[in-house]
Amino acid sequence: MKKAIVLLSGGLDSSTTLYHAKSRGYDCRALIFEYGQKHSRELKSAAAIARLTKTPYRIMKIKLPWGGSALISKRRQCALSPFVGKKGIPPTYVPARNTIFISFALSYAEAIGADAIFIGANAIDYSGYPDCRPEYYKALQVLIKKGLRDRHIKIVTPLIKMTKAQIIKLARKLDVPLEITWSCYKGGKKPCGTCDSCRLRDKGFAEAGLTNI
Amino acid sequence: MKKAIVLLSGGLDSSTTLYHAKSRGYDCRALIFEYGQKHSRELKSAAAIARLTKTPYRIMKIKLPWGGSALISKRRQCALSPFVGKKGIPPTYVPARNTIFISFALSYAEAIGADAIFIGANAIDYSGYPDCRPEYYKALQVLIKKGLRDRHIKIVTPLIKMTKAQIIKLARKLDVPLEITWSCYKGGKKPCGTCDSCRLRDKGFAEAGLTNI
Repeated sequence: MKKAIVLLSGGLDSSTTLYHAKSRGYDCRALIFEYGQKHSRELKSAAAIARLTKTPYRIMKIKLPWGGSALISKRRQCALSPFVGKKGIPPTYVPARNTIFISFALSYAEAIGADAIFIGANAIDYSGYPDCRPEYYKALQVLIKKGLRDRHIKIVTPLIKMTKAQIIKLARKLDVPLEITWSCYKGGKKPCGTCDSCRLRDKGFAEAGLTNI
Repeated sequence: MKKAIVLLSGGLDSSTTLYHAKSRGYDCRALIFEYGQKHSRELKSAAAIARLTKTPYRIMKIKLPWGGSALISKRRQCALSPFVGKKGIPPTYVPARNTIFISFALSYAEAIGADAIFIGANAIDYSGYPDCRPEYYKALQVLIKKGLRDRHIKIVTPLIKMTKAQIIKLARKLDVPLEITWSCYKGGKKPCGTCDSCRLRDKGFAEAGLTNI
């Protein structure tokens, strides 16, 4: 049975990616990162999804003491206001975050002899992050070939060219418990409905002709 | 003044790299990693070198719970025996270690607007690690261009094509306090003299016509 590491944030995309990897017959391990997010709500969702799917998981605690992002700023009101539609890279971008996450996944994959790393990155209905685009993952694949002991680890991004509506339809098909996933940048009991992540999720459900849950 | 992040392990190569970056006029920040090494001797050397050069430094604590290396194994006798001259990648290879270190350095560099990351990687008198070869750093540069907000961060590897003897001569020229640096894979009061790292260092001093200190 092929082994895979899945980056799991507890959101719609990464949860669907985990279900997808399992549907493809991969024996999965989930990596969940606690990197100073403003809230732990998404970590709870991630752990719940992992437990529900009987996926062994590790929560990696990482400190990024230099900040540089509205998502990990300690200032309460720091720029979680909507950015979708504007040009450039939004203030929620966390410097080199995906590169850090993936480098840990690569280490884990090499140590246990995993064949693939699954990531729910998405370049269509996305937030403008440069590390969510196909060319980044293509470059990563070259990096693996040139600098790792195990040159054959594959980076798999099944959602990269899908719209949010298509992802939601796939999630439905795979029986992903969408009500457990958490997309909102803010914590609290209910999603705020106004941050970029909430807006993208809402838009996706609307376009899929479904009610957001 | 241009800013740089320097990966500092406390060894001969990274210490010389820090002195080199400073001699080139960079305002340096050092990143030191505590990743479960068998001993903390090299961390002390790294911090001492940073303080001596008045370089602000951060010690990043990282857990690699999956192991996969003789360097971070808890088993005392685990394969720190000599490997130099054999074929393949030695058991002291730590899965994706340089990729993890560099990803943190990239995050730091983006957050503070640094221009370059300096790494003392060396592909000549090296231990057979794939992430010490020029093609790995070339691939990294492409990755930065494709997936980071700041596409212009440069990865600088001044020692990559130098022999150990050449590095030692450069260190002497730059007044690197070699007696403070620590290369041995094992801890203790004195270097063991038998591990790969000690052997490479000894060989370098001998070829440079100097006495190892």
